[in-house]
Amino acid sequence: MRFSPVPRGAHFFELFTESAAHLLTGAGLLARILGADRTERAELASQLGDAEHAADEVAHQVFTALAQTFVTPFDREDMYHLTTSLDDCMDAMDEAGELIVLYKLGGLPAGVGDLVALLQRCAELTHEAMPRLRSFDGLPEYWIEINRLENQADRVYRRVLAGLFEDGADPLTVIKVKGVVDALEAAADSFEKLANGVQTIVLKES
Amino acid sequence: MRFSPVPRGAHFFELFTESAAHLLTGAGLLARILGADRTERAELASQLGDAEHAADEVAHQVFTALAQTFVTPFDREDMYHLTTSLDDCMDAMDEAGELIVLYKLGGLPAGVGDLVALLQRCAELTHEAMPRLRSFDGLPEYWIEINRLENQADRVYRRVLAGLFEDGADPLTVIKVKGVVDALEAAADSFEKLANGVQTIVLKES
Amino acid sequence: MRFSPVPRGAHFFELFTESAAHLLTGAGLLARILGADRTERAELASQLGDAEHAADEVAHQVFTALAQTFVTPFDREDMYHLTTSLDDCMDAMDEAGELIVLYKLGGLPAGVGDLVALLQRCAELTHEAMPRLRSFDGLPEYWIEINRLENQADRVYRRVLAGLFEDGADPLTVIKVKGVVDALEAAADSFEKLANGVQTIVLKES
Repeated sequence: MRFSPVPRGAHFFELFTESAAHLLTGAGLLARILGADRTERAELASQLGDAEHAADEVAHQVFTALAQTFVTPFDREDMYHLTTSLDDCMDAMDEAGELIVLYKLGGLPAGVGDLVALLQRCAELTHEAMPRLRSFDGLPEYWIEINRLENQADRVYRRVLAGLFEDGADPLTVIKVKGVVDALEAAADSFEKLANGVQTIVLKES
Repeated sequence: MRFSPVPRGAHFFELFTESAAHLLTGAGLLARILGADRTERAELASQLGDAEHAADEVAHQVFTALAQTFVTPFDREDMYHLTTSLDDCMDAMDEAGELIVLYKLGGLPAGVGDLVALLQRCAELTHEAMPRLRSFDGLPEYWIEINRLENQADRVYRRVLAGLFEDGADPLTVIKVKGVVDALEAAADSFEKLANGVQTIVLKES
Repeated sequence: MRFSPVPRGAHFFELFTESAAHLLTGAGLLARILGADRTERAELASQLGDAEHAADEVAHQVFTALAQTFVTPFDREDMYHLTTSLDDCMDAMDEAGELIVLYKLGGLPAGVGDLVALLQRCAELTHEAMPRLRSFDGLPEYWIEINRLENQADRVYRRVLAGLFEDGADPLTVIKVKGVVDALEAAADSFEKLANGVQTIVLKES
């Protein structure tokens, strides 16, 4: 099913790695947004938006290359899946950052910082894994760890959600903060889907 | 990768155009719902539901034809993608109309009318673009304009959302109106995904 | 397009049936959660979580088998679609159960019980249909009935939603119960997508 390595493949791996670099930038900006005051937050969210646009550009380059390349390094639908998953990670992080600014939120529950720290770790691992699609070295460690981090994010998410509704909670604040943590949880899910996509590729080739 | 044009292709283009005609009807009904009183709204939402059912029927015909046709005019997965995107546009607009009636909403923020006007424009452009899948004439203009409209819808959506939570907002009204504008924003997203699908087809063939 | 039946196919049908058995267990647990008190609910939701994990394991086995099998009984993407739809049904039901416990909800509107009863019926029909992918016997009856049940679930969902917002509703309770019924409605949608996937397979083969 797999053709022998083609030089053209190199181009795709570089694009995936570039896309993951934007995720790393994005997750870092999200962490800084949490600690910043309102003026800084707007500026940081605008930088996060720039990272999102840059990632969009890369996704567009991959789609164009996929449409115009006859022999792709892996099955076309798996390449497509990786690209949209990378995009989904970025979109969800960008949405979280935007909502924090849009809703003029003040301090956020501690669990929100924990979720963002988990996303930063996911972004690091993903950024390290993408160039290894060339050799397949160390990829199982990557997807096992992402799955572990996503489970952890899920537990933190539920803890934050339960805490949100505690006695005396203001309904409008609940809606706003829930919007932010839902977006963070969606980002963790997308990192997991991306890792599952990498696993599918490795399974097919082995 | 592409087979020479087959007469059978004509059938698919007609179905896509028919589906887009239902979108145009749906977006028009949505605009009328905004300006109507409660009794009229229920009647218009029911007509919107009929348009949704009719579009569903067309999607079903496409899926049946795809399953039974050996040579499709474009890659099978791209045809499938177009069909589900057309369906998603309709579902989201129908949901918005239903929620307005179900929640017995009165006047809606001005931005809601702006969003619906943008969707009407998207539906017009989509309806004009579908028959041009035959010749590929003017398709880049179509997808560039849809992307521009979606960006505009995104800005309007965020403005409406920020406005919703302003001083003295009633939480239940916020939940209801947010449900409606979330559905409108999802419709704009689906129009963009549809346009991206058309772009993929053109890229593959050129 | 179809290769002659291969013994390997049997393995896939057994996995789909096993996955559907977990759906049946899950829907039953969900029904018991509604009638239970808080202590029992936590225990039942934990069993529901176990069923979800078990279903996840099965999905993983299908993906591994798909990646490693050269000739699959049906088109690869249709097998993939069935597997993710089965998974989506389970995830949505598990989410509903978890939220009931997490939000410490007391009694739920009557319509919630109706929705769960509809999901139980969907799970039964799905469990009966999966082994019949071997012979195709009685599959149209299955997907027609699922479509009917999904339409019914949609009407119940809207009735519950409208009722939720009635005079004197507490916004936090609205957010919580809406989270639960949104998850139940998503489960019904996923059962319908699964049935549509089965229909696609049958259309392709006939």
